[in-house]
Amino acid sequence: MTERIGFIGLGSMGFPIARNLLKAGYELHVYNRDPRKAETLVADGVRQGLHPAEVTEAGGIVMTMVSDDTALEQVTLGPDGLLEHLGPGGVHISMSTVSPALARHLADLHAEKDCSYVAAPVFGRPEAAEAQKLWICVSGAGAAKERAQPLLQAIGQGIYDFGEDPGNANIVKLCGNFMIASAMEAMAEALTLAEKNGIDRCSMMSMFGQTSFSCPIYQNYGKMIAERRFTPGFQMRLGLKDLNLVLDAAEDAKMPMPFASLVHDRLLSGIAKGKGTADWPAFTLLVSEDAGL
Amino acid sequence: MTERIGFIGLGSMGFPIARNLLKAGYELHVYNRDPRKAETLVADGVRQGLHPAEVTEAGGIVMTMVSDDTALEQVTLGPDGLLEHLGPGGVHISMSTVSPALARHLADLHAEKDCSYVAAPVFGRPEAAEAQKLWICVSGAGAAKERAQPLLQAIGQGIYDFGEDPGNANIVKLCGNFMIASAMEAMAEALTLAEKNGIDRCSMMSMFGQTSFSCPIYQNYGKMIAERRFTPGFQMRLGLKDLNLVLDAAEDAKMPMPFASLVHDRLLSGIAKGKGTADWPAFTLLVSEDAGL
Amino acid sequence: MTERIGFIGLGSMGFPIARNLLKAGYELHVYNRDPRKAETLVADGVRQGLHPAEVTEAGGIVMTMVSDDTALEQVTLGPDGLLEHLGPGGVHISMSTVSPALARHLADLHAEKDCSYVAAPVFGRPEAAEAQKLWICVSGAGAAKERAQPLLQAIGQGIYDFGEDPGNANIVKLCGNFMIASAMEAMAEALTLAEKNGIDRCSMMSMFGQTSFSCPIYQNYGKMIAERRFTPGFQMRLGLKDLNLVLDAAEDAKMPMPFASLVHDRLLSGIAKGKGTADWPAFTLLVSEDAGL
Amino acid sequence: MTERIGFIGLGSMGFPIARNLLKAGYELHVYNRDPRKAETLVADGVRQGLHPAEVTEAGGIVMTMVSDDTALEQVTLGPDGLLEHLGPGGVHISMSTVSPALARHLADLHAEKDCSYVAAPVFGRPEAAEAQKLWICVSGAGAAKERAQPLLQAIGQGIYDFGEDPGNANIVKLCGNFMIASAMEAMAEALTLAEKNGIDRCSMMSMFGQTSFSCPIYQNYGKMIAERRFTPGFQMRLGLKDLNLVLDAAEDAKMPMPFASLVHDRLLSGIAKGKGTADWPAFTLLVSEDAGL
Repeated sequence: MTERIGFIGLGSMGFPIARNLLKAGYELHVYNRDPRKAETLVADGVRQGLHPAEVTEAGGIVMTMVSDDTALEQVTLGPDGLLEHLGPGGVHISMSTVSPALARHLADLHAEKDCSYVAAPVFGRPEAAEAQKLWICVSGAGAAKERAQPLLQAIGQGIYDFGEDPGNANIVKLCGNFMIASAMEAMAEALTLAEKNGIDRCSMMSMFGQTSFSCPIYQNYGKMIAERRFTPGFQMRLGLKDLNLVLDAAEDAKMPMPFASLVHDRLLSGIAKGKGTADWPAFTLLVSEDAGL
Repeated sequence: MTERIGFIGLGSMGFPIARNLLKAGYELHVYNRDPRKAETLVADGVRQGLHPAEVTEAGGIVMTMVSDDTALEQVTLGPDGLLEHLGPGGVHISMSTVSPALARHLADLHAEKDCSYVAAPVFGRPEAAEAQKLWICVSGAGAAKERAQPLLQAIGQGIYDFGEDPGNANIVKLCGNFMIASAMEAMAEALTLAEKNGIDRCSMMSMFGQTSFSCPIYQNYGKMIAERRFTPGFQMRLGLKDLNLVLDAAEDAKMPMPFASLVHDRLLSGIAKGKGTADWPAFTLLVSEDAGL
Repeated sequence: MTERIGFIGLGSMGFPIARNLLKAGYELHVYNRDPRKAETLVADGVRQGLHPAEVTEAGGIVMTMVSDDTALEQVTLGPDGLLEHLGPGGVHISMSTVSPALARHLADLHAEKDCSYVAAPVFGRPEAAEAQKLWICVSGAGAAKERAQPLLQAIGQGIYDFGEDPGNANIVKLCGNFMIASAMEAMAEALTLAEKNGIDRCSMMSMFGQTSFSCPIYQNYGKMIAERRFTPGFQMRLGLKDLNLVLDAAEDAKMPMPFASLVHDRLLSGIAKGKGTADWPAFTLLVSEDAGL
Repeated sequence: MTERIGFIGLGSMGFPIARNLLKAGYELHVYNRDPRKAETLVADGVRQGLHPAEVTEAGGIVMTMVSDDTALEQVTLGPDGLLEHLGPGGVHISMSTVSPALARHLADLHAEKDCSYVAAPVFGRPEAAEAQKLWICVSGAGAAKERAQPLLQAIGQGIYDFGEDPGNANIVKLCGNFMIASAMEAMAEALTLAEKNGIDRCSMMSMFGQTSFSCPIYQNYGKMIAERRFTPGFQMRLGLKDLNLVLDAAEDAKMPMPFASLVHDRLLSGIAKGKGTADWPAFTLLVSEDAGL
């Protein structure tokens, strides 16, 4: 017999994740700020709630996938927030990319109510979410992580456990996004140098994607950047949000991250030039512009 | 019937390459500045010459794998250099990591003598050279590249052609080294942030090596950097040489490469602090030092 | 007949400012979190209050000089804060280096109570404050600035008006601190290059201080940095606070400030290495360390 | 009785310097690659030579003010170069901004011929040269510097001695140009932040020029940068040349200079965007562009 799961946040990532949970046999009770996003799910018989509290069952499981710290605070702690209704024994599986500081703070508040906060941020773009190919980092209390396990298995292709500290899975997620952004800048600088020497951008990138850099990040983003063809996916302004989370975490940890500062500045400049809603690898266009191309 | 090949430069890369050519049935005539490096080859019956000219046959093939621009100029143009003896129809396969500017200049000088210069820089560390697993970029005149083909197949696992411009294979090689160095810095910044949050460096790096960054560069260098265990391979001062070639090429192309400048500065600082002979990923220790670790 | 002025914050800057107001004939009513800092003033007959509200007179003038945004919020809006008691017609002259965002927010809250917030951040170290040699930037409502004028004249050597927007004087103050920090980094890089070439640091700096850079910042900080002799003044952790305010303002304004990011990183690294309480030009020691000195 | 002086290089700096020497009563024998630049001097009775050697007297004094290392090598060592004719006891006063490495190399070659090389690079734009207001750094052998003294006094307002090492005056000159360029970037970042907050650029810069930064560099360049009005003076491509000399010297000294790298990149990017012949503070326009202005 399957559990009923509360599911909050039906954006470009949350929506395909919710669908995979349905496919796996879970009964969902969904909430999204803009209710129209739920229409096709409702047409398939899914129940929709009017606010986070309504989709949260006492002692049950609620999953959240929202856009930033503010949104997560809102659905968790705001009026009709989920925390009030989750109660003893409940588990909140939080998949959003948020600050480790917020994750730690929310985990404390959940503990006060005898329920648990499991950080479970994911790697993968919407296509990967749809294909059940997400990579998931988890951290939090052991029992709660165990309860989250089957749900996470239904939506991803691998789960990596980073211990009890609820902030740690978010640190790892931020590290990953930072490394991805750094790879983009590095590819763009290399491709511009190649282009200025008359070398075909796509040929060079294709070679690297088959040899030393034969991994998804370099293959997929490398192709986009080489072709300068950016499909809508993850907006630059969200990329900037993530880089700010990285730099905030670095400030807390008392360490400079010069590559992170540099990529942050590219994103900020891209937004200043009106590209904020473009897909985030589009910041690499600034590398070409600086080169007079 | 096999050709006799002149082979110049028996360092940590040249030596295993020469051995693989022997294994493939080629007869070699070798030269190395320090003749002792040739001893084991000579014991196996290989002929050794006293200077580059001596191992170069008129109209034949000569391969070079030396440490930098100066050394390549020396063996090619210096007294008893190879170019004087290579003559019409000869092919010089140049595998060293040198400046595109030098490659272009040497190609012109070869053309004046009716022989050919093929740029064929390789990717891979000494272990890869030994295992015949190098990736090779080539550029130069078509007929000469064709003649070089079987030799390159005997030492590598893949050959990528970047056209006629003899400088282009070197540009691609420099782009690769730059991207590798950038990946190292990015990994080090991420690992330091993780470490400062109590996350195990190796666990995090291992996850990335299995997921978004499942490619040799991140897996191999990632392990070294996470463990802070640097085996002798490619010295930091050589890494600095390469980054200077990158920045010189960027200057010629009129483009800033801020990641390259930053990694250059790490290497320069590492050398200033007395680490010049350490393996080049050791520059990432400076990321920890800046963080007070 | 002189007004009685509320004065909040008797730190290394506030104390000498308060004394100059006394000298100019103003009657002060002072408050400081640590009451012992007021002892010598009390011995001279100054009245001391137990909390900000107590030193604030309805419709009067209250001056604040505290360490950061949090402290200013505390004394203004906290329990027994000054705003509740300032009331219609009152003027709050805020000399602290705080974020433009907070200045604008506080100005709105003051306006709601029919009183005024004048931003009046100052340039100068404690010695300058003592010598009545501060430079003062002001912004805010015209009438309130006029009422502040004689007090500011009593403590500084020049007042510069940056209009009505209460955040603007703070922007200018942050710009100044940023330019000072950048000058320090530039001097340190130049001095290290000179030192490594056997040139005497002090001779070179002295020349620049007499010629192209004959101004207080280069003369005074230049001497400290050249001699590597840092007298306690303004701690590195406060310098970092200011650079963070600069970078936050740049984020709001959507613009990269690469020099600011770099100096920020120096300060962060200096603090990570345990130098947080040293005088802030001490971050330039990291330039020497990076050079292996 | 006055000496006859050889004078080589009548560009925007050399021309007004030569005129001041004439005014001071020196008899000049001039050479310039483009002979037309000497026309007005010739009209005033000055003798003109056809090549550097012709204006050089055995055992005499020859002054050079040319555009870069290549030009200085050319006029000194090239065919009909000055060194062959300077001979025992001669003094070469070299005012160009060149690499310390070249200065040291040329000094050695002069010593071999029993003559002396005095490095005497100058600070000041053409207007300052005209007004006899240059600041001059000297280094080299003591007796030669003494002989140079009255000539340098005739063209500058102050002479600073940096010892015997002929490279040192050039190091100091490069340090100065680097500090000037850094000040420009810092001003531009500050001004852009101010502008984005609605603060008048000129008012802010004028305040700093009257207070903490009351020195020529901040006053003069500050005004240009604030007004975005760049009068032809010293081209960006020459600024880039100087920053490359700085970075080369830093490489030799084994030290990173991150501010220098950053300013170098601004100049390189400015040139890539077609601004190479604009006055060098024009690189600050890129700060505005990055901010979307």
